[in-house]
Amino acid sequence: MKIKVLKNVMLKNNALGADNRWEFKKNSVFVLNMTSSPGAGKTTLIKNSLAEFTDKYKMAIIEGDLYTSRDAEQFTDFDIPIYQINTEGGCHLDAKMIHAAIDDLDLNDLDFILIENVGNLVCPAAFDLGADRMVLVYSITEGEDKPKKYATMFEKADIVVINKMDIAPHLNIDVDKVESEIKEVNPGCKVLRLSADKPETLKEWYEWVRKEIESKSKE
Amino acid sequence: MKIKVLKNVMLKNNALGADNRWEFKKNSVFVLNMTSSPGAGKTTLIKNSLAEFTDKYKMAIIEGDLYTSRDAEQFTDFDIPIYQINTEGGCHLDAKMIHAAIDDLDLNDLDFILIENVGNLVCPAAFDLGADRMVLVYSITEGEDKPKKYATMFEKADIVVINKMDIAPHLNIDVDKVESEIKEVNPGCKVLRLSADKPETLKEWYEWVRKEIESKSKE
Repeated sequence: MKIKVLKNVMLKNNALGADNRWEFKKNSVFVLNMTSSPGAGKTTLIKNSLAEFTDKYKMAIIEGDLYTSRDAEQFTDFDIPIYQINTEGGCHLDAKMIHAAIDDLDLNDLDFILIENVGNLVCPAAFDLGADRMVLVYSITEGEDKPKKYATMFEKADIVVINKMDIAPHLNIDVDKVESEIKEVNPGCKVLRLSADKPETLKEWYEWVRKEIESKSKE
Repeated sequence: MKIKVLKNVMLKNNALGADNRWEFKKNSVFVLNMTSSPGAGKTTLIKNSLAEFTDKYKMAIIEGDLYTSRDAEQFTDFDIPIYQINTEGGCHLDAKMIHAAIDDLDLNDLDFILIENVGNLVCPAAFDLGADRMVLVYSITEGEDKPKKYATMFEKADIVVINKMDIAPHLNIDVDKVESEIKEVNPGCKVLRLSADKPETLKEWYEWVRKEIESKSKE
């Protein structure tokens, strides 16, 4: 982990996050901050979302990873800008990193940016990036008891996507229980169930994204 | 996330970690630091390990969680000391927290302590707790590509336990590939495959633990 003096870091982060939000708004760009535990399926969901949306919207990806560009490499078939951020051991993206990405991307020529955060169910919750919505991809293999255990992430999420539903029948897990605990922690949260690698299960997700983009563009 | 001034924190942490290690050694207590992503199966593995070992060794649990004592509650059937640490949003245990636990536990009356770290594949790698060995529980549902993506955790682990092997046939995952990437990142690392909730698959794990405890007691 990179050592930084963290005094007032949240204050600065929130100010920069607000800056980023204003830049996105000024340029009518809709931005999703995609979060999850490692291996919950963010990259797969993003890949299928690119297949769905790149012919409808001008898109870009901001890709967060500790050291590698493994996830970003999965997106190179799409003719869109990909901005890789390596945190060098840092456990989350922050607003400053996104600010640097904005400098590099031509926001005026974009409609929709997906930010893939570092796989971590703790710290990304604390760092506002300036995105319009925070998406929490939750793999059903992670069990029934996580919404209260990792409450801040679940509280901050605008939508929780319960992923790997195709494996659920092989697990001893009550998905309704997971969903009701999410609602306990965050009553206004939208919850979807899907399998990110099965495009036929992604209709509701695409619909949610589309509506969010449209409602922003009408602001 | 709790905000702290982190200047020199690693230096202090390592000194305290060394202190803890010395305390454990002085009292002939063997200590495992159990790490993983959220929901990878640490708690289940610990629960079955308690069933296996509490009649052979004098054990205690140090339980790390953000806010709840949900995991600790699963251990109350066992007549052993359980020390709950709530990090209040912090993403890892540190040596100071373990130091406080040591003050509370009677080390002289213990053989074996299991520390359950916060579910996080990033920061726990950076904080030496003074444990004898670091165990990384890796759920096979997390995919093939994580050892290099979360390299520091895999490098620091003495043993990687690939968990949820019973689900592996339902996933499109090559377990040999995962194992060989672990060995690439950390050639000396022991790797086991098991299903933490199937005690009949835990023999090799129990054997490893037993040998480690015995080799420490001979030091």
